[in-house]
Amino acid sequence: MGVLDFAGGTVVHISAGYAALAGAVVLGRRKSHVKKEEEKPVNIPYVLLGTGLLWFGWFGFNAGSSLEANTLAVEAFINTNLASSSAMMAWILLDVAKGRKITALGACIGAVVGLVAITPAAGFVSYGPSILIGVIASIVSNYAVHFKNTKATLDDTLDVFPCHGLGGIVGMILTAVFAVKGGLITGETTLFVNHLIALVIVSVFTFCGSWVLYKITNMITPLRVSERDEERGLDISQHNESIFEEELAEV
Amino acid sequence: MGVLDFAGGTVVHISAGYAALAGAVVLGRRKSHVKKEEEKPVNIPYVLLGTGLLWFGWFGFNAGSSLEANTLAVEAFINTNLASSSAMMAWILLDVAKGRKITALGACIGAVVGLVAITPAAGFVSYGPSILIGVIASIVSNYAVHFKNTKATLDDTLDVFPCHGLGGIVGMILTAVFAVKGGLITGETTLFVNHLIALVIVSVFTFCGSWVLYKITNMITPLRVSERDEERGLDISQHNESIFEEELAEV
Amino acid sequence: MGVLDFAGGTVVHISAGYAALAGAVVLGRRKSHVKKEEEKPVNIPYVLLGTGLLWFGWFGFNAGSSLEANTLAVEAFINTNLASSSAMMAWILLDVAKGRKITALGACIGAVVGLVAITPAAGFVSYGPSILIGVIASIVSNYAVHFKNTKATLDDTLDVFPCHGLGGIVGMILTAVFAVKGGLITGETTLFVNHLIALVIVSVFTFCGSWVLYKITNMITPLRVSERDEERGLDISQHNESIFEEELAEV
Repeated sequence: MGVLDFAGGTVVHISAGYAALAGAVVLGRRKSHVKKEEEKPVNIPYVLLGTGLLWFGWFGFNAGSSLEANTLAVEAFINTNLASSSAMMAWILLDVAKGRKITALGACIGAVVGLVAITPAAGFVSYGPSILIGVIASIVSNYAVHFKNTKATLDDTLDVFPCHGLGGIVGMILTAVFAVKGGLITGETTLFVNHLIALVIVSVFTFCGSWVLYKITNMITPLRVSERDEERGLDISQHNESIFEEELAEV
Repeated sequence: MGVLDFAGGTVVHISAGYAALAGAVVLGRRKSHVKKEEEKPVNIPYVLLGTGLLWFGWFGFNAGSSLEANTLAVEAFINTNLASSSAMMAWILLDVAKGRKITALGACIGAVVGLVAITPAAGFVSYGPSILIGVIASIVSNYAVHFKNTKATLDDTLDVFPCHGLGGIVGMILTAVFAVKGGLITGETTLFVNHLIALVIVSVFTFCGSWVLYKITNMITPLRVSERDEERGLDISQHNESIFEEELAEV
Repeated sequence: MGVLDFAGGTVVHISAGYAALAGAVVLGRRKSHVKKEEEKPVNIPYVLLGTGLLWFGWFGFNAGSSLEANTLAVEAFINTNLASSSAMMAWILLDVAKGRKITALGACIGAVVGLVAITPAAGFVSYGPSILIGVIASIVSNYAVHFKNTKATLDDTLDVFPCHGLGGIVGMILTAVFAVKGGLITGETTLFVNHLIALVIVSVFTFCGSWVLYKITNMITPLRVSERDEERGLDISQHNESIFEEELAEV
């Protein structure tokens, strides 16, 4: 029905966001989340490394979606980097503006949100809008993450919905705004309306579909681990692996 | 004499496997191995990172062996990924079937075995056989690693022979089975016989050659460290470097 | 005025080296440096990982500076790897010759010095000189780093001047020596003289310019953290992040 999605932002990120949301609803909260204990990532350098590898890999993903080594691929490549960098900067600066400290973790989340948001747009928009897409998605996700961490009762541990879901939604809508061909900025509205309709369909379908699948799976094999395993952590209870020597010693 | 080896599986991996085997024979066992103390990798995330970088680098190795950016390179690239992924899955599923826990370490070893096995075949076979090559090599290496860990008296610390050696051998034989041109599946037998002969020659030559070279080197400079250095670990005794703060403090 | 700088060695590395030198002069020394306490990197595997990623990325940087996927790019790629590998070997062997232990840290520093030194030369010299450039830069930087660590009162924590600055200077001078077109080895002297003049101009300009900018910035916002923050470390005092669990617990 005429929706633009260059490298699968809708298929991958919006779907993943709603699937995670449904999963969080079905699973319920961890004990530590109920108590609102703050949980910090166990190892920031790994987050940085992962983000770097992800960022680099995303070039293959977005630029590769032109399916040829041509000018379109180069433009998608540049758009990807512009959105990611600007989203990273926006996240950091918003933290500063809100009186929070600049963190490596925030910079990494911001960069990934930018990558998510530019995915559907990478081959359809020009350079300026790419920066805007990164900045807007970053601001939206930043507010959503802080709302989730402070007020929400949903336990979306890895911020999949606030980052991939919302980042994907912002990217999908702004693709229809800034597309060089058919975008709102060209004065046409068909594409924009199509994108809004598609967004609603995808949201309802993936949320409900995932919810049903989780419920069915849960009847066959329980999705939630025992309280004891939750307290010990999944690394050690499910895989006999841990980065903590003292835990490994007990196995 | 007509042996197919696309990206050097025989030259690199079978040779390395036998050289490691000869090294383990010449060096003898570490004290901890004699006592069959289980030694876990000190840091699983590094194993995951290394495997990721290796997997990515292997694309350059196998696809690059077509020496041009052409269709052959793309096919070798895809075959490489198919074999690696299927070998990873096969290792995990075999662990489950045997009642063992799924581990990140096992997934990584499986992936590398798949990469090793597809190396000689990458440009000569089609997609289906690539998956088969990964699966078969993974099963063979999985059994070999568990045999080594539980029963063998040889101390091949890094599983070089069970993974690179056997993975390379499986890959070499199955290349002759599945090669689109001249493989057993085409009804021809010359290539298969050639590969078997070549396998015997390479095995004998690299094992004996390595054994002699280790023995000669050992006469010039001892290959085994002192017992005290072995207990302290080579990182700290040979390089004054360690990932453990308490060890560094002593230097 | 006719200076050869293939991938920005002068612009990036010499400038960075002098800017770091000016920064170290303006900031003064850390307490731990005044006492000449030896500070080891907190995590050698991260140094290795970073060096690997940097080395790989440098190929994009140097080969990419030919601005086309052509023979020049391939030559720059090979030169980059030759210089880096030979600089790594030279650093290690010099350490051995001086009676020091071979360290992973030294190998990494050597590799980066080689990458820095070949940057201006990558597309202008042939393979043999690339190896020489790596070796010479590595020896110069090795002596400079050890002089800095044992005698200098300047506190250039990350060895930016001895590695990037001196590596860049060696690379710039040797580019004028070994350039296939116009280098000293062709009997022409114009390029060599130009490079010497340019080196003096860049050195004076970047050192003085950086010094002035640091001084101005320091008047607006203090560049040095408080003594208490210095003792706690910048990770935890500025970013509330740390790789040490006990520090995180205090936040």
